[in-house]
Amino acid sequence: MTDGLGPRLETPLFEQVTLIGIGLIGSSLARVTQRKGLATRIVAYDSDPDVRAQVERLGLADVVAPSAEKAVQNADLVLLCAPVGAMGAIAKTIAPHLAPGTIVSDVGSVKAAVIQSVASRLPENVHFVPAHPVAGTEYSGPAAGFATLFLNRWCILTPTPEIDAQALARITAFWTAAGANVEMMKATHHDLVLAITSHVPHLIAYNIVGTAADLETVTQSEVIKFSAGGFRDFTRIASSDPTMWRDIFLNNKPAVIEMLGRFTEDLIALQRMIRHDDGEGLFNLFTRTRAIRRTIIEQGQETAAPDFGRRQPEDTE
Amino acid sequence: MTDGLGPRLETPLFEQVTLIGIGLIGSSLARVTQRKGLATRIVAYDSDPDVRAQVERLGLADVVAPSAEKAVQNADLVLLCAPVGAMGAIAKTIAPHLAPGTIVSDVGSVKAAVIQSVASRLPENVHFVPAHPVAGTEYSGPAAGFATLFLNRWCILTPTPEIDAQALARITAFWTAAGANVEMMKATHHDLVLAITSHVPHLIAYNIVGTAADLETVTQSEVIKFSAGGFRDFTRIASSDPTMWRDIFLNNKPAVIEMLGRFTEDLIALQRMIRHDDGEGLFNLFTRTRAIRRTIIEQGQETAAPDFGRRQPEDTE
Repeated sequence: MTDGLGPRLETPLFEQVTLIGIGLIGSSLARVTQRKGLATRIVAYDSDPDVRAQVERLGLADVVAPSAEKAVQNADLVLLCAPVGAMGAIAKTIAPHLAPGTIVSDVGSVKAAVIQSVASRLPENVHFVPAHPVAGTEYSGPAAGFATLFLNRWCILTPTPEIDAQALARITAFWTAAGANVEMMKATHHDLVLAITSHVPHLIAYNIVGTAADLETVTQSEVIKFSAGGFRDFTRIASSDPTMWRDIFLNNKPAVIEMLGRFTEDLIALQRMIRHDDGEGLFNLFTRTRAIRRTIIEQGQETAAPDFGRRQPEDTE
Repeated sequence: MTDGLGPRLETPLFEQVTLIGIGLIGSSLARVTQRKGLATRIVAYDSDPDVRAQVERLGLADVVAPSAEKAVQNADLVLLCAPVGAMGAIAKTIAPHLAPGTIVSDVGSVKAAVIQSVASRLPENVHFVPAHPVAGTEYSGPAAGFATLFLNRWCILTPTPEIDAQALARITAFWTAAGANVEMMKATHHDLVLAITSHVPHLIAYNIVGTAADLETVTQSEVIKFSAGGFRDFTRIASSDPTMWRDIFLNNKPAVIEMLGRFTEDLIALQRMIRHDDGEGLFNLFTRTRAIRRTIIEQGQETAAPDFGRRQPEDTE
């Protein structure tokens, strides 16, 4: 295989994986589970009937269940792949139908709030292992997923102290087999790290696109025409799923507000440098930031191709 | 030819094009001039002797001149491709050596300040046509250029009212033949448009990379590892040429500060929505911003491929 995922496992890690919420992440998990043989059987459920029909058509699961309750029956692994604001209600719905010993995990971009809303609603005899694969694209829905989405990306696990060691090991094995590198940290630290590496970047991208759209002195048509000057880069993450991102901001409030405060403070300082002609201060910052990208590329988290290697539509003809 | 640039011109547009400053833009202009036959002869000069040697090695010009004064002799077109802060001094140096009727143009990302510093230093019998191709990558230097850099990008001309119509037409023909779409506007309007589509996006990208690097609660190693959550997108434009960008901010101060004020105001409003759990307000913005990217893609200014079509280093093996 040349996709980088390596050979199929000889023995599946789980008997039945149940995926709840089949968007970009859920459908990518279905695909890599099939591709690598991570489970004997995949059962899928999504609250949207159109998505369920699409999952059926795409052949992403062995069974598409008509309800979350039915979907979790007989599962030894349940993966919650819904927006973080929906996880608590799902946990409540499925709780009475989980077999003792079932492992429940999730993929939410916020961990402390998810632990609070999910763990409290699950029976004591199931194991909850909070997880967050740091991977995605700006596209949503079951058709947007692909088996290599997690390849060489990091998956962060934020187990609580009382976690069952075997459940933790099995989830680690699952993500490793899906191509990810696994890292452990405390949920509160995760939320701080992601606030700066993901949540605030998304917020400022959404914000500049909004600012540009609302100007009176520059038309929207001008913004679009001349977007290759840098603006267009921001529109990618500013076209990410609105529900998912609304939920993230509402559920990681203190960390986002703290990091946003730092960002704004630094931006005001930069504005002051511009106002006072501090060319040296600007030059020093602009030099320092170059080194960080170089390291990200060296560590395989980014491409070195100019312009992300993007090709214009007309180039591909 | 499959590069999209179309056939070579049967008759060159200029006898001698002199390029001053051979970085990403200057070397791309040299390449497209060669590729399309836009001039009979290309003369190049860069103030850095290493760059001059590289231009020689890369075969980007017919003549690599030892000085700006020598470079402009016999030119019917002189293109200034240096950082905007250096343009005034170059204009002063070359002014006595320009033949009557020579067209001088530039590629600076700021127009009012460049007109002020360049036009005032040129003799009255040469034609200055201020220009700005909205194109680039995060790489710098003569090796980074390529002939298709301007293909389907916009080149903005900001002629002053007293411009010679024929000189304007010849510069328009030059950029059109290089693959660009040409648009005219007033210099002050250009500077406002670019402040929001290019300058402020670069500033906030530099800023978030700086903020992330300076945190005490999150390590730089964590920022790098988990950058795929969105942060890495910003590192691309934050690794652009420091000298070029320092000069842009110092030379487009009022427009940048105005647009930055709008950005910050909107960001504070977003922060307030998060603080007060205004999920509807967040959702509405996040939905609106999606439509803008769609239009940018439709107009051929961006790729529709997920993640900009970026491939990880290991995928290319």
